[in-house]
Amino acid sequence: MPVLRSIRERFAVERPLDGVRVAACLHVTGETANLVRTLIAGGAETALCAANPLSTRDDVAAALVERHGAVVQARRGEGPDAYADHIGALVKSRPQITLDDGADLISTLHAVGADAGMLGSMEETTTGLVRLRSLDGLACPVLAVNDARTERTINDRFGTGQSAFDGILRATNLLLSGRTVVVLGYGWTGKGIALRARGAGAEVIVCEVDPLRALEARMEGFGVMPALIAAERGDVFITVTGGRDVLRAEHFERMKDGAVLANAGHFDVEIDLAGLRALAVEVRDVLPLVEQYDLGGDRRLNLLARGRVVNLAAAEGHPAEVMDVSFALQALCVEYLARSEGKLPPGVQPVPDAIDDEVARLKLASLGVHIDVLSDEQRAYLGIWAPDAPVEG
Amino acid sequence: MPVLRSIRERFAVERPLDGVRVAACLHVTGETANLVRTLIAGGAETALCAANPLSTRDDVAAALVERHGAVVQARRGEGPDAYADHIGALVKSRPQITLDDGADLISTLHAVGADAGMLGSMEETTTGLVRLRSLDGLACPVLAVNDARTERTINDRFGTGQSAFDGILRATNLLLSGRTVVVLGYGWTGKGIALRARGAGAEVIVCEVDPLRALEARMEGFGVMPALIAAERGDVFITVTGGRDVLRAEHFERMKDGAVLANAGHFDVEIDLAGLRALAVEVRDVLPLVEQYDLGGDRRLNLLARGRVVNLAAAEGHPAEVMDVSFALQALCVEYLARSEGKLPPGVQPVPDAIDDEVARLKLASLGVHIDVLSDEQRAYLGIWAPDAPVEG
Amino acid sequence: MPVLRSIRERFAVERPLDGVRVAACLHVTGETANLVRTLIAGGAETALCAANPLSTRDDVAAALVERHGAVVQARRGEGPDAYADHIGALVKSRPQITLDDGADLISTLHAVGADAGMLGSMEETTTGLVRLRSLDGLACPVLAVNDARTERTINDRFGTGQSAFDGILRATNLLLSGRTVVVLGYGWTGKGIALRARGAGAEVIVCEVDPLRALEARMEGFGVMPALIAAERGDVFITVTGGRDVLRAEHFERMKDGAVLANAGHFDVEIDLAGLRALAVEVRDVLPLVEQYDLGGDRRLNLLARGRVVNLAAAEGHPAEVMDVSFALQALCVEYLARSEGKLPPGVQPVPDAIDDEVARLKLASLGVHIDVLSDEQRAYLGIWAPDAPVEG
Amino acid sequence: MPVLRSIRERFAVERPLDGVRVAACLHVTGETANLVRTLIAGGAETALCAANPLSTRDDVAAALVERHGAVVQARRGEGPDAYADHIGALVKSRPQITLDDGADLISTLHAVGADAGMLGSMEETTTGLVRLRSLDGLACPVLAVNDARTERTINDRFGTGQSAFDGILRATNLLLSGRTVVVLGYGWTGKGIALRARGAGAEVIVCEVDPLRALEARMEGFGVMPALIAAERGDVFITVTGGRDVLRAEHFERMKDGAVLANAGHFDVEIDLAGLRALAVEVRDVLPLVEQYDLGGDRRLNLLARGRVVNLAAAEGHPAEVMDVSFALQALCVEYLARSEGKLPPGVQPVPDAIDDEVARLKLASLGVHIDVLSDEQRAYLGIWAPDAPVEG
Repeated sequence: MPVLRSIRERFAVERPLDGVRVAACLHVTGETANLVRTLIAGGAETALCAANPLSTRDDVAAALVERHGAVVQARRGEGPDAYADHIGALVKSRPQITLDDGADLISTLHAVGADAGMLGSMEETTTGLVRLRSLDGLACPVLAVNDARTERTINDRFGTGQSAFDGILRATNLLLSGRTVVVLGYGWTGKGIALRARGAGAEVIVCEVDPLRALEARMEGFGVMPALIAAERGDVFITVTGGRDVLRAEHFERMKDGAVLANAGHFDVEIDLAGLRALAVEVRDVLPLVEQYDLGGDRRLNLLARGRVVNLAAAEGHPAEVMDVSFALQALCVEYLARSEGKLPPGVQPVPDAIDDEVARLKLASLGVHIDVLSDEQRAYLGIWAPDAPVEG
Repeated sequence: MPVLRSIRERFAVERPLDGVRVAACLHVTGETANLVRTLIAGGAETALCAANPLSTRDDVAAALVERHGAVVQARRGEGPDAYADHIGALVKSRPQITLDDGADLISTLHAVGADAGMLGSMEETTTGLVRLRSLDGLACPVLAVNDARTERTINDRFGTGQSAFDGILRATNLLLSGRTVVVLGYGWTGKGIALRARGAGAEVIVCEVDPLRALEARMEGFGVMPALIAAERGDVFITVTGGRDVLRAEHFERMKDGAVLANAGHFDVEIDLAGLRALAVEVRDVLPLVEQYDLGGDRRLNLLARGRVVNLAAAEGHPAEVMDVSFALQALCVEYLARSEGKLPPGVQPVPDAIDDEVARLKLASLGVHIDVLSDEQRAYLGIWAPDAPVEG
Repeated sequence: MPVLRSIRERFAVERPLDGVRVAACLHVTGETANLVRTLIAGGAETALCAANPLSTRDDVAAALVERHGAVVQARRGEGPDAYADHIGALVKSRPQITLDDGADLISTLHAVGADAGMLGSMEETTTGLVRLRSLDGLACPVLAVNDARTERTINDRFGTGQSAFDGILRATNLLLSGRTVVVLGYGWTGKGIALRARGAGAEVIVCEVDPLRALEARMEGFGVMPALIAAERGDVFITVTGGRDVLRAEHFERMKDGAVLANAGHFDVEIDLAGLRALAVEVRDVLPLVEQYDLGGDRRLNLLARGRVVNLAAAEGHPAEVMDVSFALQALCVEYLARSEGKLPPGVQPVPDAIDDEVARLKLASLGVHIDVLSDEQRAYLGIWAPDAPVEG
Repeated sequence: MPVLRSIRERFAVERPLDGVRVAACLHVTGETANLVRTLIAGGAETALCAANPLSTRDDVAAALVERHGAVVQARRGEGPDAYADHIGALVKSRPQITLDDGADLISTLHAVGADAGMLGSMEETTTGLVRLRSLDGLACPVLAVNDARTERTINDRFGTGQSAFDGILRATNLLLSGRTVVVLGYGWTGKGIALRARGAGAEVIVCEVDPLRALEARMEGFGVMPALIAAERGDVFITVTGGRDVLRAEHFERMKDGAVLANAGHFDVEIDLAGLRALAVEVRDVLPLVEQYDLGGDRRLNLLARGRVVNLAAAEGHPAEVMDVSFALQALCVEYLARSEGKLPPGVQPVPDAIDDEVARLKLASLGVHIDVLSDEQRAYLGIWAPDAPVEG
């Protein structure tokens, strides 16, 4: 994780977080440990609990406590009560800055009025942001790291674009070349998946409800059509809309024998599993991650990873370098909140462009890529006074 | 222009512009005539003058007057005085809505205080928007049609992406396959050009000053490097930054014999022509749109169209269907300003998403493409109450 | 034409054609002049007549005679009698080596028994090769330059792949992005056209009769289907099969209003023009190279360049660098025939791989590209004794 | 394996192999079992031994014996003596047709003079073909199934193109987007790998020794350069030349810290492992399939799967549908040899085009793809009398 490492090295010198109390409710994994160590290197007193007990690595938790001095409240497989206790413990530690993956920590702080006076918070999921935007009277700023441009670019488009197919291939060992792949949803992630499907030799069909996205997909040369028609043509279907029941009985009924169903959206509701089960005369496991739904009449549909997000459930999730960018963004946001000293307005707000730019700059450096800088004359011509502002094409 | 036609047909029925005085300072071409006819069909009293006397088609102007009842102040090749007179005439007509291509009309109205009370204005160039944003006390709303998402997508990325190469091929009859194309600037247009260069079999190098754009280019698999290094590798150079002196002496000095220089940005200042001339021992016209600069030492650089925007200067500019989308957007913006009845705040503001969506929807229809709609349950799940809001991927 | 120039420079030193009588029946153009000058530089006595009187450039013919000492029998627009006379004159000159574009010269020589004792001949069209393969008792070797791998790669795939769209855009100024392009025929040229159509943002459908080609197209991710179904989906149709009546009444009847018909095959029989005319209620010229066939019922089809090969009829044919490779191949074949001194067997035969390799090597040099060479150990491992034999992947 | 299944169904009806003795020395896997069952369905008496004891699945061997009546000589992990015995047993069974994966069986038959009188043999590796072409006096025909066009297209280009990256991703979880991938060797497999690398968002550099292949790579827009220069630029290196020591000390010394080395060629000699070891100050296993060679000076190279063919060693080898095509080809070749009744000339010879076409046709059918057929008039125009001959583009 070279981007985060370069930030850690700077933090160790500048100590921008000296004495700041930070609490994080995240997946307790090796990558998260790197983030925690970075915050500690910057001077923060850091406490951590697990956003999901199933992903907790106890060895990582132990090392953070013993070697790096973090407070960690997490045990693999812990139940709901333990989770509530751990959140409670973090709340009691009176954090000044929080990091969330689902908004549980900041919501609890808000419920007890402890968000007032905080330097700020961060949330890295769409779901958490929806939740926070609907809260009344949020008393501290919340940076929407989930919506940052680097996050969208690296994580959604290029990260999931690759890892979704990594999951599909590990589950099925299917040859993508010569197949028709139907991508349902053409948001950032859907764009990445459509691009990689084409790059793997598939014919690609996109289904959308948003006219501008649908138009963009069409202008890229993809087939665009209603899902009901695509259902008859596809060999592989990938849902990535953020919505629910994107594929349902009326689609299953039109699909070809052997069609593969995968979900790359966050929740396992994009494929209507109950509807699929109701149509099936028999369901059998044909491979470790493939359930075959026999619909009778010589038609069998293959569901991957029970409809859970396929890059995590069937492969290793994101490459470490994707997490590197996400956590670098979070580390810089913690620094920004600390340096802003509570002067930011309360409520959900975007990550400042300057942070996005800095992450991009560090990522380019890690790739060994150098770029140009504007001369003063060029800057004057463009009417730019801020340093390093972009040139419009 | 099927999109604009469908709007014209609706306007003729609904008459949303009945009695509204509209003035436009645009290129007086066949495409513009279609826009003017659409406004008239909607009930507007429309006056037109020429944003650029060189593009004026006198036959089009005559037909608008004689057949469609527009007031037209334009003559091909007219001088600056005539231009000032024509703007003045339009100002005197006390327009309620204006359309600009460079902000001359609205600026003049503002200078005499006539923007107060106007329903609003529209501007379709980046340059015009920069100018308007720097004006003090603009008293009416100005819709930044130049920044609308459909405009950016269809016009910049897909339109110029294609037509820039159309211009380069007509000027040179060069085989792009096997060549190294250097694209300077990776904004919307630069993205389109890089995409098409790759699609034509070229190796593509991108030069940028903005780190996030540079990172995005790199993640797409393009070579990204400083222009000084790219200068040694490129066979064809295309500037599209919006800035100036992007290619200059230090670059020319490193370029290979036979390199081709083209500009796809709005102004002819992206390639430093004076710097190029200063280095040359001889300049000769080798083809109608190709000037060869002999730098001595067996190195010759080929400048296309004297550095003017290559898709307009060497080919036919945008395909009609690109203008169709641009003018559809403008027609709908005129309607929006008329229906808003002066309730919008003053100042430059974005085109509402609903207008972008409507243009996309009409364009999809013209391509014969149908898309899905959300069910009520799906809409509820997504927390969307407005009609036709997009699904996040 | 840097490849041919490098050969001319070597020929001028080595004089491999000293005193050899060469006769060529080719298009009398600037590119051909470069070939003739190369042969003369190698020592050949060269005579030239025009394969097609419409392409003859009289100034080129004159310069070849006056400045370079060639014998030229060609006048722009000459009739069939003059053509026969010119062929006759070349036959009388008792050439030792001939170059043909359609096999007229060598056929005439064969008819009078003058092929016996010749060093050999070359033919650069598929049609000419079909004709020669059906001849009884051809008495000299004929090199099938048309089938050489460099010719197929550079000329067919990359040359026509680009120039066909150059022609279509010049004729129509159509935006390819978002369109469905149907490519009929997936030979070398069809592959190039399909590749470029995709690279321009189109959705691509391929129609074929050969199962292996159809399979290859499908594995590349193209839609593959019978032409009758594709007829309903396409916006642009391009025939490139080498056959006839590829598009005919049954297809026209299914096409969408506004469909564009172009031919990129050698002859204008791929689109059944008579059949199209028979269906039309009206035909009008809508643009210089576009005839619109109104089929009634609001369906109009747009035929480009009257069905003649679109890259030649609507654009400038091949880029000069494509002809550079073709004529370099021919120059090296003349040398090979001269150096073989009549020891080759009679009949049509492939161009030796070593010549293809040499042309590729010179072309790479002209592009500034360097490649690796095998060590002796690597060569031994591969069991290769000949110099520079390829490594199999 | 739908293609092989359709052949099995026909064989069961037509019994083209009735009483023919067939012996095969292949990998004893589930896919091979399908081939053996197909031959048995066609009436053959079939014996099988294992070309590689490590790939033998004992359960498959048992099932072939018990359920399908094959003779199988194979046990997982058997030593060289057992292998020799098994080959010997097959030789003694006096096969009329043999299938080989490395030419051991037919070579042994030839050594004892038993190839005389055989109906023929097949060989599916390049290495085996090299070996057979160097044999004196081979007395029966050998079909080079390895060189068949469907085999090259489906297996090499599309199969290995995908599965090589499947292996690399499983071993490293690397993000390909934004990386520079160097492909050494641009034969059929190298083409597939380069195509997929680009499709995954990488910048691609090709290294070659063959000028025509190098030119083709360049015309596709790939960077082409000597391996010594590419060594400094690459993030991931993939060898696929068929040769040896393609990457060696001089390349390792120039590589960047963190570079990944993978081999997709048949043998593990393409990366000079001894040379790599000699440069390293330390070697450690960093992941199950990744050895890190620390070269000192902050440079570490990551070798995948100890240089063995990465799609087999790090992933599951080919998708089943790739083997389906390979074995369909072999089944049809067995039928062809049986029906030819010994009338074919002895020696290595290509698979007849009609068999390639039939495999392609069956594969298209399995993909649900339909294609056109020529009319009699079209066929006459093309001068084709054989059924279903291809149309030249």
